[in-house]
Amino acid sequence: MNELFYVVSEDTHNELVRAAYLHRGFNESEADYAAKFSAYATRHGIRTHNALKALHLDHLFGSQAGGCVPGAEIEKKPNRFTSSEVWNANRKLGQATAYEAIESCIQLAEKHGIGMVSVDNAFHYLWGGGYVLEAASRGYIAHTNCTAALAEVVPFMGKFPTLGTNPHSWAFPTKEAIGFNIVIDWATSVVAMGRVQQFLREGKELPENAAVDAEGNYTTDPSKVSALVPFGSHKGYGLSLINELFGGFIGGSLPTLRSRWAQSPEEKHTPNFFFMVIHPEALSGCDFIQSRTQMENVQKVIEDILGHGNEKCLLPGQLEAEFLERCDQNDGLLFTQNELEAFNEIARECHMQEWSLESLKEAE
Amino acid sequence: MNELFYVVSEDTHNELVRAAYLHRGFNESEADYAAKFSAYATRHGIRTHNALKALHLDHLFGSQAGGCVPGAEIEKKPNRFTSSEVWNANRKLGQATAYEAIESCIQLAEKHGIGMVSVDNAFHYLWGGGYVLEAASRGYIAHTNCTAALAEVVPFMGKFPTLGTNPHSWAFPTKEAIGFNIVIDWATSVVAMGRVQQFLREGKELPENAAVDAEGNYTTDPSKVSALVPFGSHKGYGLSLINELFGGFIGGSLPTLRSRWAQSPEEKHTPNFFFMVIHPEALSGCDFIQSRTQMENVQKVIEDILGHGNEKCLLPGQLEAEFLERCDQNDGLLFTQNELEAFNEIARECHMQEWSLESLKEAE
Repeated sequence: MNELFYVVSEDTHNELVRAAYLHRGFNESEADYAAKFSAYATRHGIRTHNALKALHLDHLFGSQAGGCVPGAEIEKKPNRFTSSEVWNANRKLGQATAYEAIESCIQLAEKHGIGMVSVDNAFHYLWGGGYVLEAASRGYIAHTNCTAALAEVVPFMGKFPTLGTNPHSWAFPTKEAIGFNIVIDWATSVVAMGRVQQFLREGKELPENAAVDAEGNYTTDPSKVSALVPFGSHKGYGLSLINELFGGFIGGSLPTLRSRWAQSPEEKHTPNFFFMVIHPEALSGCDFIQSRTQMENVQKVIEDILGHGNEKCLLPGQLEAEFLERCDQNDGLLFTQNELEAFNEIARECHMQEWSLESLKEAE
Repeated sequence: MNELFYVVSEDTHNELVRAAYLHRGFNESEADYAAKFSAYATRHGIRTHNALKALHLDHLFGSQAGGCVPGAEIEKKPNRFTSSEVWNANRKLGQATAYEAIESCIQLAEKHGIGMVSVDNAFHYLWGGGYVLEAASRGYIAHTNCTAALAEVVPFMGKFPTLGTNPHSWAFPTKEAIGFNIVIDWATSVVAMGRVQQFLREGKELPENAAVDAEGNYTTDPSKVSALVPFGSHKGYGLSLINELFGGFIGGSLPTLRSRWAQSPEEKHTPNFFFMVIHPEALSGCDFIQSRTQMENVQKVIEDILGHGNEKCLLPGQLEAEFLERCDQNDGLLFTQNELEAFNEIARECHMQEWSLESLKEAE
């Protein structure tokens, strides 16, 4: 937290992000979702998926590359099942699709206890944690997984990247119990490709077992990296495979062709999303000892886990919650100078007024 | 596969296992489930959860220790939700409870696309992979997780064991696509405590980052191990936490008291189960490219993952499928001489005829 941050009001940020998306042809609703999501990620300290990264991804794979279609309409496919929906997103903006999918899952879970929405022909939704946290903040347990844009990860013991970094995201409504909602959210590779590139620039060595060279041998030299490796050997490989299998059952095509629109035009190139929401009441056996409520029971379980000498351990979502609190105390979103300059580039791109860096206050 | 195995017919095996369970006071139906499950685990090469281990666990934590109640009746709790059930298992035999829960999930998924059963006051179900494979063999996607009997695992960066080895099990109906059903099934610790004890006996060193001493420092010396460590650092810790949170929402009490019936009688000591089944049709966007069926599409996805030089990689469930095939070829279950001798001890315990080792043929 020693990095110097500047405070930008959420309104100012959202105005610029909306303008940038409108400038690229997205409609008002999509621009609203994109701004809301970027602000939410930024408030939680998820700098890898803030507005700058979202717009960069849109440039690389999205509306500028064929992977995302501004103004696309989601088509809900007919389905004989009551707790599940399948959508054809028609490459609609990922943030808009994901927020709407979580909303539908919540409605299904309200009625059925559990609800799921599967999405075909999707476009990158950035940070899965944001959508499940949205559900958790409204009192639900939520999960999402997706097939990541590019196949960059080898199967366990493999040498050619045929799996995405395929993240898993879970959130639990624990705010009442411990002050914030637990969010378990990570890619199934040891590191992201962005980290390899950063280490290459900085002349650093990678952790062991994080990447392989073209022969499938582990390497810590970022310049020799040909592909990433799943975390936890065969276990993380299994988790990554889950996303590919869901994708395959939903309608996704070959992983190695994902987002590679120039290759094999006779195949599909879109990722898939899977969302699931569970109503906590639908889990309750109504038999909490010591007359505890369900939430008091969850609190005791967590206290037990972090007791007995484990008091310094963190819970997943704790750092995000601390960053959120810092943003709240500063009454705005926190950005570094480099990030502010990148926002001003975007302002120039879409003919908006640049932010005056001198007028922004430093974050406490 | 170089170990020497002897062939025991499934009928012979099941007769003895049934007798052993009946001898301990379980009813006919429970004894049937226990025998069926043990045979299934053995056929899949899951020697850590065969009948010998099941009976040993029953001795340590089950009907001989208060954790399991022979003849207990499952009580289905009232529930306003249509796709979910919550059961009070009243400490019924885990195998019986789990088979019935998967059956109910399948019925829910048939109607709703997805169904879940949460179980409170449960007893150890042994190998989660067996139940999800049962669902997969009938065409469904299935998941289960549970809180493991004992807290043996530290939170990431912790020093006191407050988490179970908390396994996750997933199965996918891929037999039509690739010849066997994929099963992703493992504990969230790097190794099991049984492995630590085995390494201690054999004078071997543990892998790095698998266990900690009493101060929370990593150790490879099995004699210094105080607790196990989650696989994949914070990522596996998050997965283990998921099971504890599900347990807490369902009705489980403090993890450190689980199965420790002598401590704090005012708290609960039972584990929890969570089961979920998804109907593959409820995932389908009906838009598989190249006129593929859903199953053909899944096949292409898997072929792509294991292509491009990755042909030697295994799929999760492949070794189990190979062992199953070997059992089928030998027309029976495969056991080592040590295992056969242990079965004969059980035969003596429940006054059954011992197996004549000389009459058993060696497995091919």
